Amino acid sequence: MDNKELAIGVLGAGGNIGQTHSHNIATYVDGARLAAVYDLNTDRANEVAQRYGAQVMDSAEALIGSPDVDAVVIASWDGTHAALATACIEAGKPVFCEKPLATTQADAKAVVEAEQAAGKRLVQLGFMRRFDPDYIKMKQILDSGELGAPLMAHCISRTRSHPKDHTTAQHITNIAIHEIDICRWLLGEELTEVAVRFPRSTCFAEGTCKDPQLVLMQSESGVLIDVEVSGNSYYGYEILCELVCEKGTIRLPVAAEPIVRSYLRCGQAIPADWTARFVTAYQQELQHWVDYLRGKTAAPGPGTADGYAACVVSDALIRAQGSGAWEKVGG
Amino acid sequence: MDNKELAIGVLGAGGNIGQTHSHNIATYVDGARLAAVYDLNTDRANEVAQRYGAQVMDSAEALIGSPDVDAVVIASWDGTHAALATACIEAGKPVFCEKPLATTQADAKAVVEAEQAAGKRLVQLGFMRRFDPDYIKMKQILDSGELGAPLMAHCISRTRSHPKDHTTAQHITNIAIHEIDICRWLLGEELTEVAVRFPRSTCFAEGTCKDPQLVLMQSESGVLIDVEVSGNSYYGYEILCELVCEKGTIRLPVAAEPIVRSYLRCGQAIPADWTARFVTAYQQELQHWVDYLRGKTAAPGPGTADGYAACVVSDALIRAQGSGAWEKVGG
Amino acid sequence: MDNKELAIGVLGAGGNIGQTHSHNIATYVDGARLAAVYDLNTDRANEVAQRYGAQVMDSAEALIGSPDVDAVVIASWDGTHAALATACIEAGKPVFCEKPLATTQADAKAVVEAEQAAGKRLVQLGFMRRFDPDYIKMKQILDSGELGAPLMAHCISRTRSHPKDHTTAQHITNIAIHEIDICRWLLGEELTEVAVRFPRSTCFAEGTCKDPQLVLMQSESGVLIDVEVSGNSYYGYEILCELVCEKGTIRLPVAAEPIVRSYLRCGQAIPADWTARFVTAYQQELQHWVDYLRGKTAAPGPGTADGYAACVVSDALIRAQGSGAWEKVGG
Amino acid sequence: MDNKELAIGVLGAGGNIGQTHSHNIATYVDGARLAAVYDLNTDRANEVAQRYGAQVMDSAEALIGSPDVDAVVIASWDGTHAALATACIEAGKPVFCEKPLATTQADAKAVVEAEQAAGKRLVQLGFMRRFDPDYIKMKQILDSGELGAPLMAHCISRTRSHPKDHTTAQHITNIAIHEIDICRWLLGEELTEVAVRFPRSTCFAEGTCKDPQLVLMQSESGVLIDVEVSGNSYYGYEILCELVCEKGTIRLPVAAEPIVRSYLRCGQAIPADWTARFVTAYQQELQHWVDYLRGKTAAPGPGTADGYAACVVSDALIRAQGSGAWEKVGG
Repeated sequence: MDNKELAIGVLGAGGNIGQTHSHNIATYVDGARLAAVYDLNTDRANEVAQRYGAQVMDSAEALIGSPDVDAVVIASWDGTHAALATACIEAGKPVFCEKPLATTQADAKAVVEAEQAAGKRLVQLGFMRRFDPDYIKMKQILDSGELGAPLMAHCISRTRSHPKDHTTAQHITNIAIHEIDICRWLLGEELTEVAVRFPRSTCFAEGTCKDPQLVLMQSESGVLIDVEVSGNSYYGYEILCELVCEKGTIRLPVAAEPIVRSYLRCGQAIPADWTARFVTAYQQELQHWVDYLRGKTAAPGPGTADGYAACVVSDALIRAQGSGAWEKVGG
Repeated sequence: MDNKELAIGVLGAGGNIGQTHSHNIATYVDGARLAAVYDLNTDRANEVAQRYGAQVMDSAEALIGSPDVDAVVIASWDGTHAALATACIEAGKPVFCEKPLATTQADAKAVVEAEQAAGKRLVQLGFMRRFDPDYIKMKQILDSGELGAPLMAHCISRTRSHPKDHTTAQHITNIAIHEIDICRWLLGEELTEVAVRFPRSTCFAEGTCKDPQLVLMQSESGVLIDVEVSGNSYYGYEILCELVCEKGTIRLPVAAEPIVRSYLRCGQAIPADWTARFVTAYQQELQHWVDYLRGKTAAPGPGTADGYAACVVSDALIRAQGSGAWEKVGG
Repeated sequence: MDNKELAIGVLGAGGNIGQTHSHNIATYVDGARLAAVYDLNTDRANEVAQRYGAQVMDSAEALIGSPDVDAVVIASWDGTHAALATACIEAGKPVFCEKPLATTQADAKAVVEAEQAAGKRLVQLGFMRRFDPDYIKMKQILDSGELGAPLMAHCISRTRSHPKDHTTAQHITNIAIHEIDICRWLLGEELTEVAVRFPRSTCFAEGTCKDPQLVLMQSESGVLIDVEVSGNSYYGYEILCELVCEKGTIRLPVAAEPIVRSYLRCGQAIPADWTARFVTAYQQELQHWVDYLRGKTAAPGPGTADGYAACVVSDALIRAQGSGAWEKVGG
Repeated sequence: MDNKELAIGVLGAGGNIGQTHSHNIATYVDGARLAAVYDLNTDRANEVAQRYGAQVMDSAEALIGSPDVDAVVIASWDGTHAALATACIEAGKPVFCEKPLATTQADAKAVVEAEQAAGKRLVQLGFMRRFDPDYIKMKQILDSGELGAPLMAHCISRTRSHPKDHTTAQHITNIAIHEIDICRWLLGEELTEVAVRFPRSTCFAEGTCKDPQLVLMQSESGVLIDVEVSGNSYYGYEILCELVCEKGTIRLPVAAEPIVRSYLRCGQAIPADWTARFVTAYQQELQHWVDYLRGKTAAPGPGTADGYAACVVSDALIRAQGSGAWEKVGG
């Protein structure tokens, strides 16, 4: 693809993540512009379109098929990802697909096969943590070898609330999916065995959703990962990770916020949600996608193989939620 | 007991922990003095005795039976604790016994029964973390209720090295025993189910000892505790703990050390071992013991019931090391 | 100005700051492109031009006058700023001028007058700290009034090295100028009295330049500011600031970097220079400039009045370096 | 002096600092006991005496002269220190005297001369920061030479409130006196020139007392020290210090307190006053004094020479408060 500015269409542009991507394309990403949007909620679609001077499309199909759209961002709800990605692939349009690639292993496989049939790399997955400067530095320190081999990882993923109909399984497919991917990426190997254990649930848990959960995953070489997945953390949004190596450990920093000393207390603000925590990562993943499409970098971002691998681990974790035992990934 | 200064005898006075206790009695503890010491290693016993002006005894029995000794500290190796504590009880001497009370549940039970037969509280266990100012403040915040009920605890226990013959089971009886006790104390309830999972071992692991280990414990009300137990952490000694509650979390602070900015790096020292980390806790537990014996406080420290409970959890964890499954405590 | 993309020309594009601005315009700033560059060092100018597909101009005058250039960035050495800014104003071209506006109060005044003669706002000054998220949050907390009125500010500006011919006065005009501006902006008032005191100089000080220096400034309402200005800090680049208010204090955070535990030490990297510290601020100031020129925001960035005010304070500080006494600003 | 336990008498035992010293002698200090107390406020004296089983004396003279008192602690108000210390010296009794030694240089000189006339070291001054583990480590790092020579020190001394009749000068004699001593001790050299500058005063300032103040001091070798002295800091008690050296800096840590994440905020408690901050230092200074008197250490603590030197610097600072200019110490 040549040097021209890409016209991007965003599906699900009215939701939180859709608005973030639309905003970043319209105002930050170099080499791309927001050309078109679609959302089931027409009012929200109109609002976003007007704000950034984009077209509103009548349907996802119309957006994907439009000659005014060079490439597509899928930011609609999780259950639609696989079908829409396949539609983009079949239309020959490059697509940036929010995680997860699919909510089941079978659906994920269908997308992988569609891309293989197309004969070229067309999909980047929204595993934005790979573009977070802190995770990148963490991986550089790990890969330098100065601290020896990794042995364990302690991860925490806390989000203040989730939709009312969010299920016990969605703690895996919607939240822990990020730890699945980032641990595969950090360690450079596959996760092979998994388990889930339920603590008592918080008083803020909704309906039958068990919250929090302790997710355990072990890699090929034996690195053991524990993840606290909290969907109703109340106090704030927080993503933590400590890699325990033979000669030392590496921890994600907490966000830099002004330190305030007030009445008998010294502290700093905690972000309320992900928008504040991963600003740069969300910008960089889209910039990378556009740079890749425009030939400015040869290294592709996370693709369908990563999306599929994450789904296979997710499936094993959902089985483990039911069995209470360790489950083999892909088993 | 009246107001007079107590004459203390220390068994195993030549080892690391024995020297710490001897030093604290001789120089810090108010209302007590170091009267006598014994150690299998006579040279070391002589050295300690000379340093603080104490008598050297010919045997543990001699020290326990001596009319010059009002109360006894047991700081010898783990396998001797139960028998020596029983001997003290039978001699009617108050005893401060280093953790663990015993290396098996059965041995612990024997001490409990000896104390019951004596008809009075004679034993304080060396669970010094209950006297650490940081853990005390943590419990105060938890008990205030402002953060809601506890749901999970993330603990880390890292020690730089252990004796060559240290076994996989000793990660439980010698190291994790502290987390067993402190979690019982923090939560105010019993631990009922446990599991252990082994990551790949560090290159520093000795012999057949699996190191590190991930210890999981769950309390009556469902609080789920994960503990990284590292016996060859190389980089330093570190005890961490985060209590995750419904409305927030509480974390142990890292030790306050001067912050040094040097070539492209900002940081602070990490203690090499426990002596630096728990200075105050080791002083306070002995001060409390002496105060209790002298009637200056009515609240006893941790006793045989706590030592026994910890042994019961230990036994279940050792079973879990073998089975790879969740084991019921006491089951 | 309408919605079209602005063609930007950069003067001094081959230097550190020039390359940063060129890179940001070419790859980050939305609504602008790097059209042309000029640098005394032709090799460097060619390099930058080639990297981003820009034209190389034969002279500063050619760049300013070119019909292919809509707006100009001045990133050449301090002594050229005033004359080049005036040339841009006279050509009716909007200009982004690196700080300082001028190296003397008299030269600064000439630019102010040229802009007044032009009858419209044409200059934004490169006081990028006003666009740093940390300083912005600090100001929000201060302005909320929850901590009461400001009383003092403790500032530190450390840079690892400076050019060999850097003078004692340039600690003011080139380094402390940032604190002059950011304190005016944070406090919302003018600085009226100043002093400088010299500690013993570091062994790394070059020639006759006194380094470090303690700069003192007092505002209209009496807020007293102390600034450590270190030009050879060796260990790293660091900008710190604590605002002391009646009921509490606000401190800039240190940059968030992964926390590494290694042999007996816990720490994190310190940036080697400003490029890592103020990445976002440098992007945002140019984005703001372009947004303002394109009518997307009505709020102008720092202008000639700010540049002039900073020069007046600088002049007083240079007088104070000589006199050793408190000097009135503008006096 | 031989090995026997010392009988200590405390003057001013009913005040804050007197109660702290009485408590430490009665319960912590090894080799000493609280024998007698005196306070103008008889009720308070009785209370302390009863709590620790000590005698109440009818007057300071009676306490100093009593054969039941081996050594004396002076914890009465600042204006009485010099006369009481002289009385102890003349009675041949070792004395631990709270800072300051005197409120004027002349009075301090009289004590120095009394001790010289007695022909032996009889006085330890209450500069407890020299016994604070953090300052001790700071000095060790400085003295190691790894960071090169010291150039500057940034100090902060904040206390939440002071007595209503506290004067502008008492910010020096009662508060900054600690920084005067600790900087002399850290740097190992005298302070030779000083200045004071007044920011606008806080709304919490009482009467005519100017608060806060910026104290500047320069050492023989040119190290420049700035000290924020706040007597109404409202938010908490805090002592900070950063030593700026040629190759790096050393900072006092903030106290280790549990880190609490609660609603959108992460933070830790700040001590309300000095009792929590310097617990160990207050214990160690008395332990050291007793150890020295009992021949267990040959190194004396801070003495009259240190007390006098601090008074000389204080006098210069009070002159500087009036003149607004730099003043020579001793000049």
